Amino acid sequence: MKLIIGNKNYSSWSLRGWLAAKQSGLSFEELTVHIDGDDWEAMKQQDGEFQPSAGKVPVLWDGDTVVWDSIAILEYLADKVGRDRFWPKSDDARGMARAMVAEMHSSYLPLRRACPMNIRAQHRVGLSNEVKADIVRILGLWAEARARFGKGGPFLFGTFGAADIFYAPVVSRFLTYGIGVPGFAQAYMQAVWEHDWMQSWIGAAQDEAWTISQFEVGETA
Amino acid sequence: MKLIIGNKNYSSWSLRGWLAAKQSGLSFEELTVHIDGDDWEAMKQQDGEFQPSAGKVPVLWDGDTVVWDSIAILEYLADKVGRDRFWPKSDDARGMARAMVAEMHSSYLPLRRACPMNIRAQHRVGLSNEVKADIVRILGLWAEARARFGKGGPFLFGTFGAADIFYAPVVSRFLTYGIGVPGFAQAYMQAVWEHDWMQSWIGAAQDEAWTISQFEVGETA
Repeated sequence: MKLIIGNKNYSSWSLRGWLAAKQSGLSFEELTVHIDGDDWEAMKQQDGEFQPSAGKVPVLWDGDTVVWDSIAILEYLADKVGRDRFWPKSDDARGMARAMVAEMHSSYLPLRRACPMNIRAQHRVGLSNEVKADIVRILGLWAEARARFGKGGPFLFGTFGAADIFYAPVVSRFLTYGIGVPGFAQAYMQAVWEHDWMQSWIGAAQDEAWTISQFEVGETA
Repeated sequence: MKLIIGNKNYSSWSLRGWLAAKQSGLSFEELTVHIDGDDWEAMKQQDGEFQPSAGKVPVLWDGDTVVWDSIAILEYLADKVGRDRFWPKSDDARGMARAMVAEMHSSYLPLRRACPMNIRAQHRVGLSNEVKADIVRILGLWAEARARFGKGGPFLFGTFGAADIFYAPVVSRFLTYGIGVPGFAQAYMQAVWEHDWMQSWIGAAQDEAWTISQFEVGETA
């Protein structure tokens, strides 16, 4: 299998597809399409982050099969290795996890536009009421998942799974943009950040030295 | 199980959730939240159609389990009754179907904004280049699915399934807005439109007499 991804510092959808591939336990080859600063700015103006659609990343190649879009990649891999590797076993937890992942997939445009993923940076930006509403909604979902289903570990539904994969770029955003969150969310974000695969991705993002542009330095607080 | 949906004439995401519930073969109770014209206009300005997110439709209740968002509802039901009822059996077809469904779930905002679902109406609107690009992309996906995987029947992957469920509101839009499409697409759209469940939904949409407002009559070509 081959997974085509974008820049690790910026491409939030690539991070989701890549974490899904890691979670599958299957071996895969990574192909990175480096997108330069101008392209990145143009894409950012569209939707605040890379969209999982035509001509964009991530894309999974598996023999004759081409799967684009992070949620489709995750489900395709779950078809191969078994649903339990990605989703909670109980109906009520899995129903909520599925809905949270789907909501992340189609929603939070204000947050995505205002706070694009930028793993290396520390930014402070003004937050509109729409962005704040997205943050409150996400924290509410995290709180409910942790309280109802998080007994078995530090992640949203206990052990690391699809919901954590989909919200991992949000964790990065909350850190980059210094979003103040309650203690339970800090603990959850720390667990995600310290996860081996996240640390590996973050290290690679930090090594993408070509993107340390004047723009980024100028914007760093 | 209970499925909460919006107006059948307008709520494209509800149609997807409802078709998924029908496809499951399980019995379910329908609860309709009628949304009046003003609310509809306000929602339309946000995203062109009902978004599958917090406080919106459709929502599936199954005992203690609450599943919001159409794609999560479909997958939750597939978990209950078996994947094969919704998705193609072969990896390559299923990979493509999953990606097409995911793309519908997160994309085509220009089309969704310019051409909201309105089953009863016949409108003509000017189509921007962005909307035309969405239409071309969708027709391309339909063509590829039909050519590669459509041998077993008139639907995208032969028999009626998840991809048809997700693109059914697009069929309605193409008809409402008089989008010219090639013959293969006309045949596909006819198959969707004549499907028993679609006919049932369309009949109910036509019976929602309260919405035959001055606005709508004024807009009808």
